[in-house]
Amino acid sequence: MKKHNFYAGPSILPEFTKEKTAEAALNFAGTGLSVMEVSHRSKEFVAVMDEAVALVKELLKVPEGYSVLFLQGGASTQFLMAPYNLLDKKAAYLNTGAWSKKAIKEAKFLGEVVEVASSADTVYNYIPKGYEVPSDVSYFHYTSNNTIYGTQIPTPEVDVPLVADMSSDIFSRPIDVSKYDLIYAGAQKNLGPSGATLVIVKDAALGKVERPIPTMLDYTTHIKAESMFNTPSTLPVFACLQTLIWLKENGGVEAMEQKNIEKAKILYDEIDRNKMFQGTVLAKEDRSLMNVTFIMTPEYAEFEKEFMDFATAKGMLGIKGHRSVGGFRASIYNAMPVESIQALVDAMQEFEKMK
Amino acid sequence: MKKHNFYAGPSILPEFTKEKTAEAALNFAGTGLSVMEVSHRSKEFVAVMDEAVALVKELLKVPEGYSVLFLQGGASTQFLMAPYNLLDKKAAYLNTGAWSKKAIKEAKFLGEVVEVASSADTVYNYIPKGYEVPSDVSYFHYTSNNTIYGTQIPTPEVDVPLVADMSSDIFSRPIDVSKYDLIYAGAQKNLGPSGATLVIVKDAALGKVERPIPTMLDYTTHIKAESMFNTPSTLPVFACLQTLIWLKENGGVEAMEQKNIEKAKILYDEIDRNKMFQGTVLAKEDRSLMNVTFIMTPEYAEFEKEFMDFATAKGMLGIKGHRSVGGFRASIYNAMPVESIQALVDAMQEFEKMK
Repeated sequence: MKKHNFYAGPSILPEFTKEKTAEAALNFAGTGLSVMEVSHRSKEFVAVMDEAVALVKELLKVPEGYSVLFLQGGASTQFLMAPYNLLDKKAAYLNTGAWSKKAIKEAKFLGEVVEVASSADTVYNYIPKGYEVPSDVSYFHYTSNNTIYGTQIPTPEVDVPLVADMSSDIFSRPIDVSKYDLIYAGAQKNLGPSGATLVIVKDAALGKVERPIPTMLDYTTHIKAESMFNTPSTLPVFACLQTLIWLKENGGVEAMEQKNIEKAKILYDEIDRNKMFQGTVLAKEDRSLMNVTFIMTPEYAEFEKEFMDFATAKGMLGIKGHRSVGGFRASIYNAMPVESIQALVDAMQEFEKMK
Repeated sequence: MKKHNFYAGPSILPEFTKEKTAEAALNFAGTGLSVMEVSHRSKEFVAVMDEAVALVKELLKVPEGYSVLFLQGGASTQFLMAPYNLLDKKAAYLNTGAWSKKAIKEAKFLGEVVEVASSADTVYNYIPKGYEVPSDVSYFHYTSNNTIYGTQIPTPEVDVPLVADMSSDIFSRPIDVSKYDLIYAGAQKNLGPSGATLVIVKDAALGKVERPIPTMLDYTTHIKAESMFNTPSTLPVFACLQTLIWLKENGGVEAMEQKNIEKAKILYDEIDRNKMFQGTVLAKEDRSLMNVTFIMTPEYAEFEKEFMDFATAKGMLGIKGHRSVGGFRASIYNAMPVESIQALVDAMQEFEKMK
């Protein structure tokens, strides 16, 4: 039976990425060795790192004066590195979910945090608007897409440098990198397997804090060493490169955005039409194109488990909602084919007819 | 042509590890999905993590009261985490090379470091002995194997808790874990690909320092979450598991130690016999069974490049010595077959006859 991979992360990757990585696990770049057993300083692997960095710059139109790094430790490590390197005395954070909260917690180790707004009171089912960002902060931090709650944020218009956790929507749409001091993203949604973390940092934003920074937490360490201060996560970086190649061959982030809008519409339209289901996000403009969260309508609430079993039997994987929200979550990242979304919509329609 | 993989790290892995990982990159545990695109919280991946932890405990006879973790960031991140969690006021460090120096540098962020001895004066070509470790330190830290200089250290006999960076010789020999508060190792030598870091920590050693510890740097974070506080490096951990299975099937660390002694003897015997080569390590008891470092004897020094080209043409990969030592380095980890060592010895003998 065809499986439909709706996991929130690690999550669906292009066939191209999987095939090339499986090949390289046995024979990498004609070396006769696995990509896992070749020195990161070999010319073959250095070429992988260089091409990955160049493609990130090309696809996201990264301006001059920014460094692109592949690190380890996920966004969770960036929650600490970002303030360590950039927070002088005070920073502003927008609290739109569990990941924002974790970022705020770590920033408080380093200085004062102004939480400019929060939607915690309603389990983060909307994106706060109309908040004020103090002008005397080092930066304004936000989470661009909230996997758990199914919300997404366009680039905020504020007068201070931006820092964003884009783990779950990077490469899903164009972004104006010049507005950011720092963008970071765990790879395991639109980029590759877990174990690699993408960092895009403005060089001129560094060196402004007084505190000493431990070597591995200092962006300048990794910039100087071109992501090879310590051994990078070689196979995950190789896999990320394959996805970047696939992205370019498929029209880049502009084409992805169009496809993502079309794909998400199919599912949201069904959620809005089907009498048994409803979305969890209050305002339609806050709905994520990456993670579609929905629950049974109150009159059909008793059928939640039955639909879960029904959909699972039809090959849907990973559609259980996060325990803090309940219901369902369909993660439909770049690599998700429209056929899988249609399969879920078909299951929803079939289930409705049965009742 | 058959390639002989003498890379220092990332380095040779068992065929079993490569084949199983290549398979799982396409279809993992019968899911029809890649191991790279399955949630780390799926029952299939949780089983991988659980089995990997259980096999580490079994192979190294880890006593009760220790936690086994798979983290990210390599030994370089552990240089910081170790003192953050364990250094109260003062710690003792043995300086046997570049990695020790880096560990010492990070420890100084957190407290006083007593460098009990150093072989820096002679480019680390011996292991200091007869040093005194103060009794009032939180721990004594050492690097068990020095990849660059080709030295290795048996478990030191001291009266304070031990902390060891075993990145390049873990699983190459039995160790008495009960003598350690902490053992850490980047995976990319005897365990798996880069991107995973093994940590074995004594639970009772934690919670004794007063300082607040950032979440990701706190071992208790990862112990409580069973290495899933954040998304672990799933494919690298899967590959580590394959090597652990291979290790068990091949007699465990006891059998590995015997094979490693035999394998290293073949190469060291040739270095000592061949008039054109000499070892770089002063005392034979300090010689590493993992990284065999050697140079041309002074009377044949002019032939260094010629031998490098000669050996490379015969399929030897990664035998260039580290720039700080020069000459040659043959890394002969667990997965290195005796045939490759013999091929290098044959090349050395053939080269000698040519001159």
